[in-house]
Amino acid sequence: MRFGIFFFPTLGPEDRPAADYYDDCLALAERAEAANFATLKTVEHYLGAYGGYSPDPVAFLAAASQRTSRIRLVTGAVIPAFHHPLQLASRLAMLDNLCHGRLDAGFGRGFLPQEFAAFGVPMDQSQERFVRGVEAVRSLWTGEEVVLRETSHPGGPMYALPRPVQVPHPPIWVAVTRTPGSFIWAGHHGYFLMTVPHVATRQETQNLFRSYRQAWCRAGHEPGSERIQISYQCLVSEDGKTARALARGHFEDYGHKLADAVALWAHTRSTDYPGYERLAVALAANTFDRALANATVLVGNPEEVVSQLQQVRRWYGDVELSLQVNFGTLPLEVASHTLDLLVSEVIPRLGQAQDR
Amino acid sequence: MRFGIFFFPTLGPEDRPAADYYDDCLALAERAEAANFATLKTVEHYLGAYGGYSPDPVAFLAAASQRTSRIRLVTGAVIPAFHHPLQLASRLAMLDNLCHGRLDAGFGRGFLPQEFAAFGVPMDQSQERFVRGVEAVRSLWTGEEVVLRETSHPGGPMYALPRPVQVPHPPIWVAVTRTPGSFIWAGHHGYFLMTVPHVATRQETQNLFRSYRQAWCRAGHEPGSERIQISYQCLVSEDGKTARALARGHFEDYGHKLADAVALWAHTRSTDYPGYERLAVALAANTFDRALANATVLVGNPEEVVSQLQQVRRWYGDVELSLQVNFGTLPLEVASHTLDLLVSEVIPRLGQAQDR
Repeated sequence: MRFGIFFFPTLGPEDRPAADYYDDCLALAERAEAANFATLKTVEHYLGAYGGYSPDPVAFLAAASQRTSRIRLVTGAVIPAFHHPLQLASRLAMLDNLCHGRLDAGFGRGFLPQEFAAFGVPMDQSQERFVRGVEAVRSLWTGEEVVLRETSHPGGPMYALPRPVQVPHPPIWVAVTRTPGSFIWAGHHGYFLMTVPHVATRQETQNLFRSYRQAWCRAGHEPGSERIQISYQCLVSEDGKTARALARGHFEDYGHKLADAVALWAHTRSTDYPGYERLAVALAANTFDRALANATVLVGNPEEVVSQLQQVRRWYGDVELSLQVNFGTLPLEVASHTLDLLVSEVIPRLGQAQDR
Repeated sequence: MRFGIFFFPTLGPEDRPAADYYDDCLALAERAEAANFATLKTVEHYLGAYGGYSPDPVAFLAAASQRTSRIRLVTGAVIPAFHHPLQLASRLAMLDNLCHGRLDAGFGRGFLPQEFAAFGVPMDQSQERFVRGVEAVRSLWTGEEVVLRETSHPGGPMYALPRPVQVPHPPIWVAVTRTPGSFIWAGHHGYFLMTVPHVATRQETQNLFRSYRQAWCRAGHEPGSERIQISYQCLVSEDGKTARALARGHFEDYGHKLADAVALWAHTRSTDYPGYERLAVALAANTFDRALANATVLVGNPEEVVSQLQQVRRWYGDVELSLQVNFGTLPLEVASHTLDLLVSEVIPRLGQAQDR
């Protein structure tokens, strides 16, 4: 199993200054690399405490590029609907150069009505903007006289600079949740998947992963070279009870901020987001106890987390784990301790994929 | 006199890979800080060799923030016309946090027709977009329920995150060249100036600076607290002839790429850019010999550069020098040597502003 670290701030000035949060994340990035973690990921969000400290994953990863030398840097995800393709392609290529070819470029559709409203982008165009945006960026990375015809930003011919280090282009990841067509589209195009474990049921998720892997093979991509990354909140402590008591508060803090962020869905309808009007209700049902029972968080003593991880592997195969170790308002010490225990007590006990 | 370092790439893949160029710049950033330089600056440009390796000054400065700890980081400049104010405000604030309050936020109008065409922004709106954009960013940094009414991106109320470290907001600089109204506008609003020495004549520049300083005082800002930064290409070598021979080729390489970049002006007219249709001709007249004679480049042995700098000070007062030491395709060794000689042989001989 491959491991990564994932920074998803749910903080505002009333919690702590952004500078402190970034300092923590950069320190954790160094520790994750020292622990041979494979990836370091952060999000793009605006305005509220839910993600608002991370409007520019490129800037954060550019900073992290100078504190690390091996770990892969993942935009998880940038939102093409909110960017001109030339800016997105050029900025990501610049990052790929700053980090000497360590960029994994993750793209997402976005799902917060207030972000779409702020940028004046209709949510009903979200799917099209996403698909066209990814294709436009890919064209700009590889083409020399690129004409942008089918995007909301027509133009060209353009030769975008700088060129990415990775040839033909950085690996493309797409953030998906539960729309079957998205999983099939990603597999067909040879894109990797990033997802979260708690939006769909385990059974649904297994089916979606199966569709993805089938589409991957059917399109002629090398079987087994597809990749799936799942994000989990993670807290490990010597004592399981302590871990759960500590995690519960921060899980709930995270949940409150997510609930605030999706509140507008109660009054929003979009053909591109069927069922999202029930999102607030669905998320509210995702209590800490339920998350623990369903292994959609990884929390406990090392032994408990080993068995949670083995369960994840039995369910989903050899996926990659992208771990939020400083979720909620958890301080650096707790997050660092989780990393330490993962490295010393958890990962060594996982063994190879014998129980797949 | 205050000194800064300025990175303005005029490179394409046929010259050298972007990763090498950034590595050089980051190494020079460390050396400039060690030399007690005050500022580190980079530009925003797209598409061609003229600036195209720097589409995202925020990303570069975020990387530099982790290699330095005291030097001020300057966007020189970002172009509001090409950004949503919420993204620009949030990303700059994120940078201000990553560098712990060292951001000097420089804004410019942009002047390349192909960039405006790529982003679908009419050049005739450039002045308005610039002014409204700066004001919108400033509002988003300081306000809590900001409504964007008079920008091309209406929306709100918004509370932008993260908040900048510097209170009430990072210092604002504006890039200006020769429009008298821009100098007066900047002085009136208490903004600092960044400019280049070769677009206007010395006499014009002196008059423009005078207008700026008068507007500054008239608006009630503290006299003498205004700041003017001028960018120069700079090459110092023990032997003056060697310095000139080396600089000439790189100056001309820079000039060719600038000429390519402004070629479209021959067929472009814009009410917001009176006279720019003659830009290509004017720039072509700026030969290396003329630049040397007019002290619009700083090139020579230490003694010669000392006297060039004293002349700049006599003409313009106690301005700040923002130096391109790796202009054209100059390698790291030459740029580093220029920095070394500036620190050891040039700056110590300048003395205080006795000859103002």
